[in-house]
Amino acid sequence: MAEGVEWALHSCLNLSWADRPVPAARMAAYFDLPAPYLNKQLQALARAGIVASTPGPKGGFSLDRAPEKITLLDVVVAIEGPEPAFRCAEILHASPFGDRKADYVAGCVISQAMSAAELAWKKELAGTTVADLRDGVARQYPRSEDQTREWLAQR
Amino acid sequence: MAEGVEWALHSCLNLSWADRPVPAARMAAYFDLPAPYLNKQLQALARAGIVASTPGPKGGFSLDRAPEKITLLDVVVAIEGPEPAFRCAEILHASPFGDRKADYVAGCVISQAMSAAELAWKKELAGTTVADLRDGVARQYPRSEDQTREWLAQR
Repeated sequence: MAEGVEWALHSCLNLSWADRPVPAARMAAYFDLPAPYLNKQLQALARAGIVASTPGPKGGFSLDRAPEKITLLDVVVAIEGPEPAFRCAEILHASPFGDRKADYVAGCVISQAMSAAELAWKKELAGTTVADLRDGVARQYPRSEDQTREWLAQR
Repeated sequence: MAEGVEWALHSCLNLSWADRPVPAARMAAYFDLPAPYLNKQLQALARAGIVASTPGPKGGFSLDRAPEKITLLDVVVAIEGPEPAFRCAEILHASPFGDRKADYVAGCVISQAMSAAELAWKKELAGTTVADLRDGVARQYPRSEDQTREWLAQR
């Protein structure tokens, strides 16, 4: 999984605290990340409808829906794409007893087992939202929300 | 995930049916795969204690433990290594309120949530064995076991 997933998740969490749009450069400065690369992740989140971009001198990125409505799976898919980690290449097609017309992605027991595991992973990611992350931080690092909101509001 | 995982899982399943050691070239011919690359995967399985390699003219690869004792997680880790898919780079270390001494892999809520999802994936993979795959094939493709055993026994 690319580092962009970590960046995007932290950006969503920060945006859930922000009280105004945050420019990509300001968000990048927060984590000491290269702004153009972080901007690329934020654009991917925008294409997925997770964040919105406001132009202009007071513009920047903000969450485009409530943190309760953004799951970790939404963010991972926005950055990594919808392809499964295990990609069945249907190598049984070439085997001596393979059926060249068979759909082994659906029919092969190995593909089925690997898909079941990926489904368990997705269910877990889909069951956790940015709001849950925020609750977790509120418990573990109660000052983070206010500190971060203030810092991000500076230009 | 690399294609080697698919190759390794199918190889383990085939070896669970084989009644004698199978040379890498014979296994590669079964799936029409490049023998040197498949051999690399089989060597990785050997290093993980999943298969054993017997030298000599009648040598080849065989399972080194019962199919009930080989989980899909064993095979995935043998090929992909033990690294998690989501690698927390602890970007909070650089943040204005970050604690440079903190262990954010353990302490960051994002790292925790991503690890929980990966644990769900691993549990699923660890709960399925090569014996389970074999049972699945026996139900769906009852002739596969005998056909494959006979084919692999030829040189």
